[in-house]
Amino acid sequence: MLKPIVYVVSDSVGETAELVVKASLSQFNNSSFHIQRIPYVDDEGTILETIEQAQAIKAMIGYTLVKPELREFIRLETQKRNIVSIDIMGPMIDGMTRHLNQVPRLEPGLVHKLDEDYFKRIEAVEFAVKYDDGRDPRGILRADIILIGVSRTSKTPLSQFLAHKKYKVANVPIVPEVEPPEELFKVDPNKCIALKINPEKLNHIRKERLIALGLNATATYANMERIKNELEFFNRVVDKLGCKVIDVSNKAVEETATIVQEMLRNQGQ
Amino acid sequence: MLKPIVYVVSDSVGETAELVVKASLSQFNNSSFHIQRIPYVDDEGTILETIEQAQAIKAMIGYTLVKPELREFIRLETQKRNIVSIDIMGPMIDGMTRHLNQVPRLEPGLVHKLDEDYFKRIEAVEFAVKYDDGRDPRGILRADIILIGVSRTSKTPLSQFLAHKKYKVANVPIVPEVEPPEELFKVDPNKCIALKINPEKLNHIRKERLIALGLNATATYANMERIKNELEFFNRVVDKLGCKVIDVSNKAVEETATIVQEMLRNQGQ
Repeated sequence: MLKPIVYVVSDSVGETAELVVKASLSQFNNSSFHIQRIPYVDDEGTILETIEQAQAIKAMIGYTLVKPELREFIRLETQKRNIVSIDIMGPMIDGMTRHLNQVPRLEPGLVHKLDEDYFKRIEAVEFAVKYDDGRDPRGILRADIILIGVSRTSKTPLSQFLAHKKYKVANVPIVPEVEPPEELFKVDPNKCIALKINPEKLNHIRKERLIALGLNATATYANMERIKNELEFFNRVVDKLGCKVIDVSNKAVEETATIVQEMLRNQGQ
Repeated sequence: MLKPIVYVVSDSVGETAELVVKASLSQFNNSSFHIQRIPYVDDEGTILETIEQAQAIKAMIGYTLVKPELREFIRLETQKRNIVSIDIMGPMIDGMTRHLNQVPRLEPGLVHKLDEDYFKRIEAVEFAVKYDDGRDPRGILRADIILIGVSRTSKTPLSQFLAHKKYKVANVPIVPEVEPPEELFKVDPNKCIALKINPEKLNHIRKERLIALGLNATATYANMERIKNELEFFNRVVDKLGCKVIDVSNKAVEETATIVQEMLRNQGQ
């Protein structure tokens, strides 16, 4: 069992805090760092136990606690023991209190409340699963965004990332052997986004994919001629649609998702 | 167009920072807050422009910048103008520098690097889409986690949330009319998690669902007798499997995901 290097103490799920810790850890050279989340903490006892564990194995602590008295408690107790501890959300909440001149509600987990926003997000995730990979072209007509691309251009994960932002996304694979669904030509081209990729990168990704599947990397799927053929067909579809294009060749899904959101924002959607 | 109340300035995608701002904002009573992300910032010019915009519309600023000189720049320039600005990641990186006694790499976006971790996550997202809703029972044999439940117990969104944590998740709907796939009985019951829900809650959720679909809320789907019938069948399957059960009646998907992770951790997986 790996010893954690950072404990994340939260009065709610602790997911956001863990992301901050992960992003910060990525700045240091060691891939074996382990993070231990302690969720739903709302008493001094649990905090003290965690502090003692952290002391014993020389870990540091990051915390998100909305109650000021618990924040103060953890700050003092870690200081006493010379443990590095960082208040992740506190400074932001204090800053907002000053900026908004409003008293915070101090209830843990408000961000996870089962509100309208939450249900929209869940609906979007389900939508993206249902209308993945051109499964049902009717989804195209109901989507906020339609992604098109040849195989292995990150259509599925990108759809899911955008779903978490509450966009309803349908994605449609483009293959020379299959005529693109007519629904594609019926929707506002501004809703359509084509994922472009360069042939070398695609060749590399597909080879990797074949190997991961335990198949021979020389299959047609990763063949350079086949790829160029597919991309030509894809380009013709894009021209016909007149939709926006994003080159995903060297982008992580998060980056592409950010670009899509910027595009939609600039269109005023 | 809504005026943003917080600008999020990041030298990378800015997603983590936005989550911190969102969670903090949820502590204040106003649902119309708008957040504006400014991604990929790496120069003083863009920072200055953002500060001027923030000043003009009385917004505050949250930032994640790994370069100390840019952090210092934004801190001083906002101070001069009396703008509330919060360094979201800086204190954590500084704390880790002290704790690890290691110099950070100070390269933006390291957390989004296209590394092994990233590809595992993408693979898990694709897996969850592919083996959603019992589509292909072979997925059950390859999954890290198998979720079972009657319709509307958040199997799909939960699968996606866990996929983002790099777990390969298959989910299988339980319906009295269909014999559960035999693969379910072949896997380690520790990998199986049953999502339980109380009939009243399910009745409510299904009614809402029918209304959202533009259908009559009195359909069999939301009928109390039908629901009890389904849940009885579900209980029999759960007993036969001998798997773990989570009551999702009043839980947000994030909370259920946390419980699943704790269960797996306790099993030492």
